Amino acid sequence: MKPMGPIPADFRARGGALLIGGQKASALAERAGETPLFVYDIAMVEARIARFRTAFPSIDLHYALKANPFAALVHRIVPLVDGIDVASGGEARAATEAGMAGFCVSFAGPGKRDAELEFAIHQGITINLESENEAARALAVGARIGVRPRLAVRVNPEFELRGSGMRMGGGAKPFGVDAARVPALARRIVAEGAEFRGFHIFAGSQSLDADAIVEAQTATVALAARLAEEAGAAPPRLNLGGGFGIPYFAGDSPLDIERIGAALEARYRDRPAALADTRFCLELGRWLVGEAGVYLTRVVDRKESGGQIFLIVDGGLHHQLAASGNFGAVVRRNYPIAVADRFGAESEEVANVCGCLCTPLDRLGDQVAVPRAQVGDLIAIFLAGAYGASASPSAFLGHGPAQEVLV
Amino acid sequence: MKPMGPIPADFRARGGALLIGGQKASALAERAGETPLFVYDIAMVEARIARFRTAFPSIDLHYALKANPFAALVHRIVPLVDGIDVASGGEARAATEAGMAGFCVSFAGPGKRDAELEFAIHQGITINLESENEAARALAVGARIGVRPRLAVRVNPEFELRGSGMRMGGGAKPFGVDAARVPALARRIVAEGAEFRGFHIFAGSQSLDADAIVEAQTATVALAARLAEEAGAAPPRLNLGGGFGIPYFAGDSPLDIERIGAALEARYRDRPAALADTRFCLELGRWLVGEAGVYLTRVVDRKESGGQIFLIVDGGLHHQLAASGNFGAVVRRNYPIAVADRFGAESEEVANVCGCLCTPLDRLGDQVAVPRAQVGDLIAIFLAGAYGASASPSAFLGHGPAQEVLV
Repeated sequence: MKPMGPIPADFRARGGALLIGGQKASALAERAGETPLFVYDIAMVEARIARFRTAFPSIDLHYALKANPFAALVHRIVPLVDGIDVASGGEARAATEAGMAGFCVSFAGPGKRDAELEFAIHQGITINLESENEAARALAVGARIGVRPRLAVRVNPEFELRGSGMRMGGGAKPFGVDAARVPALARRIVAEGAEFRGFHIFAGSQSLDADAIVEAQTATVALAARLAEEAGAAPPRLNLGGGFGIPYFAGDSPLDIERIGAALEARYRDRPAALADTRFCLELGRWLVGEAGVYLTRVVDRKESGGQIFLIVDGGLHHQLAASGNFGAVVRRNYPIAVADRFGAESEEVANVCGCLCTPLDRLGDQVAVPRAQVGDLIAIFLAGAYGASASPSAFLGHGPAQEVLV
Repeated sequence: MKPMGPIPADFRARGGALLIGGQKASALAERAGETPLFVYDIAMVEARIARFRTAFPSIDLHYALKANPFAALVHRIVPLVDGIDVASGGEARAATEAGMAGFCVSFAGPGKRDAELEFAIHQGITINLESENEAARALAVGARIGVRPRLAVRVNPEFELRGSGMRMGGGAKPFGVDAARVPALARRIVAEGAEFRGFHIFAGSQSLDADAIVEAQTATVALAARLAEEAGAAPPRLNLGGGFGIPYFAGDSPLDIERIGAALEARYRDRPAALADTRFCLELGRWLVGEAGVYLTRVVDRKESGGQIFLIVDGGLHHQLAASGNFGAVVRRNYPIAVADRFGAESEEVANVCGCLCTPLDRLGDQVAVPRAQVGDLIAIFLAGAYGASASPSAFLGHGPAQEVLV
């Protein structure tokens, strides 16, 4: 037997059946007509946003669209947040189509094309510049279309978020401009008549260590103040990035965001003079939506091989690549899994949960302890709300994409 | 500097420009209108097929569609091979739409749904059964629609392909039926009036070791003969799987398929009596098409960070996940890369080639030695013909899919 990650505490059962947004998982699957499907519980997302607001009353909240771009979900999030961060022209379009004003959208990402810059500038979107070349191109596009671009500088800081699942800053990096060159670039933006929108400093993501995040945020504020002073330009906004992780694996504990909030609020109240008129913002994706999603897939076959039980399901890594351990993970570990109609029941056997793809990579649960499941049973794989449907190779092996449902 | 894998020897230059199918890469990109794009050279695929025919005159050749399902490519391959192996109902549809007769299609893959079984049986496709349960379902579907199903048994052998990139057999596996239970299943297929089509025994894939493949094939033939005898049923076909690898990384050498052919031909000539009327077939995907594909992506930014050069391209892991090292690889290594318009030129600098996705996972070349490239230059990433476009998360971050072109 190998351990699984923790099932988010929000999920309840009725008569042994997993509820998502108050509805039985099996009823949701039936209504959808086909499995597999992703179900996102908007109430859980709203609860996360409310918790953030309480913990961070002075800090703006941006949604990082890349975590989950499902249109129905984004439409519900837009009125609840202060902005949306996008990573492509396609995402910029999705954000504005979901009703977010261009002024509240910011666009980070290396390799922005001219057409993407043009769309963003036209919409009044803030562009987080990744290089001096990109600044020149954005200024040229703005001049060509006669719109004053809103430009911030994405900074590659000298520090990184300790122990984060993914390092976005520190050392030689494709993201942002090395801190030493930032003041000159900020001065140039102002000199060329663009609207200077401030700094974007993102040090890492998927951290469960509140102290490490506090430390990175403290360093971020200090760096922003220094850069603002050196640039002689007051930044209207400081985007401190995200980095808030969720527990995926056995041994992971939820992040203490209240501790981070208390520290950042204190930092904001006592912010350096150079940031006196600066709004602080955090961009969160995974932490807002990750736990609110469940991937439901049906058992198509139950078989035995070499003394082990295999539950073969109709889903797989083509929908939930990360759960198979094939997206950025060094070692494969189990996401939390349950038999939807026996939620909370005692485990009765150890089984492998394998997807329907004809590749040994397609394993969703490796030697997990579960109640006995039969053909036709619905398996719930949790933590499917972020980097799931959109971050998986849905065309692989021709099974087609999964449905997505908001409840 | 870190090494790159070898560029396939088939690629030539004219005036320093990379040719694909006799056409300049830059002209192909211009004609496509947008980058990135995948270009597949059908002549290289045809040459691989011809080489196989010479080396394996008595052995049937099947194309494993999952390697590359691009319709224009499949249409060209269909008349040149003896069959197509598919891994889903969607692929089965693609194979028949490309003109392959159902009789020449076989369908392997755990977790086949009833609707997929029904389509396959209706089309006369051979179903490689993955379990006793699946056999019962296929027989029931056949009875219901009044069509005699063509059924083979996929065997989980006790051995595996030594040193293969991906093990498909040996020990507890989600694929096939453990060898000990196969004779009973074969007898049942015959007893229930289905057309018994033989065995499918696939021990591993992506091997560059001819001796290991010969060894696995020898064991496969012996196992098939034993199973046929024990079942008392003559197998019309023995599908020995594939396993032929291509060199991706520094130090890899091309597979000596002629050696494998000589051994398998000898094995075929002296096959056991139980296989007297058995056609042998190999199903190849990656080896046929992998080297024939090139992913072309344009430099959008050239920047410096922490003393390193970064070339940011408009493509990335959303199209070529495997090249980023995030699909089944334990350690990230460099695929071969070239600056398309300076093909074969001396390298002038060490650079990182990063995709346009806002994630540190999106690295296509790590510290590779290349001629100096500028914004607008086209970068060629080789070995993009198999498990590229269809095996990558094309919706990730909203940049959209790549184009695909056959030349």
